Amino acid sequence: MVVCGVDPGVAIVGFGFVEVSKKTPASGQKFSAMRYGVIRTEAGLPLETRIRQIYEDFNRLLDMAPPDALAVEELYWGANVTTGFQVAHARGVILLAGSQRGIPIRTYSPQQVKQAVVGYGKAEKHQVMEMTKKLLGLGRSPRPDDAADALAIALCHAQAAGSILGLV
Amino acid sequence: MVVCGVDPGVAIVGFGFVEVSKKTPASGQKFSAMRYGVIRTEAGLPLETRIRQIYEDFNRLLDMAPPDALAVEELYWGANVTTGFQVAHARGVILLAGSQRGIPIRTYSPQQVKQAVVGYGKAEKHQVMEMTKKLLGLGRSPRPDDAADALAIALCHAQAAGSILGLV
Repeated sequence: MVVCGVDPGVAIVGFGFVEVSKKTPASGQKFSAMRYGVIRTEAGLPLETRIRQIYEDFNRLLDMAPPDALAVEELYWGANVTTGFQVAHARGVILLAGSQRGIPIRTYSPQQVKQAVVGYGKAEKHQVMEMTKKLLGLGRSPRPDDAADALAIALCHAQAAGSILGLV
Repeated sequence: MVVCGVDPGVAIVGFGFVEVSKKTPASGQKFSAMRYGVIRTEAGLPLETRIRQIYEDFNRLLDMAPPDALAVEELYWGANVTTGFQVAHARGVILLAGSQRGIPIRTYSPQQVKQAVVGYGKAEKHQVMEMTKKLLGLGRSPRPDDAADALAIALCHAQAAGSILGLV
């Protein structure tokens, strides 16, 4: 099973494709990072141009490695509602791309991601990074942070799907 | 010039296509409602399904009567940020549809719409309805409210474009 994790944004969208191997009695579940990175858009452009670029780039990624599931971070508005609204526009076109291809979509809160990856819902960012690196068997932490976040979201889904559906 | 006004939402998206005739010394600018109505989505469906339906239905409308401009209401979060976030997802796919077709997009705040249509930024809703009906030469107020709002947004753009660009 391939899970694509997405950390939505307007200036920067993190993505991470994680391959999950089936769990067997002999070996535990295995995760590997197939591809990860970010989609960036230019600050001076109109919002509609930026989200179109995100839609097009994200579709290209889905073409290259069609995932079995999409795991998208839920929005929280913390300090800045205006920024949150912009991110929601971008998140809309990401959900659209997934829905148009019939890819099952699940959303997770930052707390759920922390709980799944570190085992503690209030874990620090660096702990999530460290466990993401470890679970994926990477030599160093994925960069930039948005890509690492996306990989953590994909891992969260892989673990949730594993416990709920017995897929991993 | 044809302006398509949009009042974004998840459960209900108002749309209104307004034709604007050129201003001549003999006759003032004329507005007529070509088509207006709403796109509705079902409450129980996942957000990604609802915004995909909005994207598909809105594209069908753009196919039927390609507008020269898209005028979309700005978001304000008033009482409920969570609802605002959902609306922003839907607004994202509307902006995407416009951008993919290269249609110029302008956004207006509710105050700007009131100012343009009634001449007073704090006008009451019923005053906006009344003036919208009058400017479009309609026998009765357009229904539902979301469609009337969309027509008012289109009128706002027509008037703004008229004063700025001399188009109407």
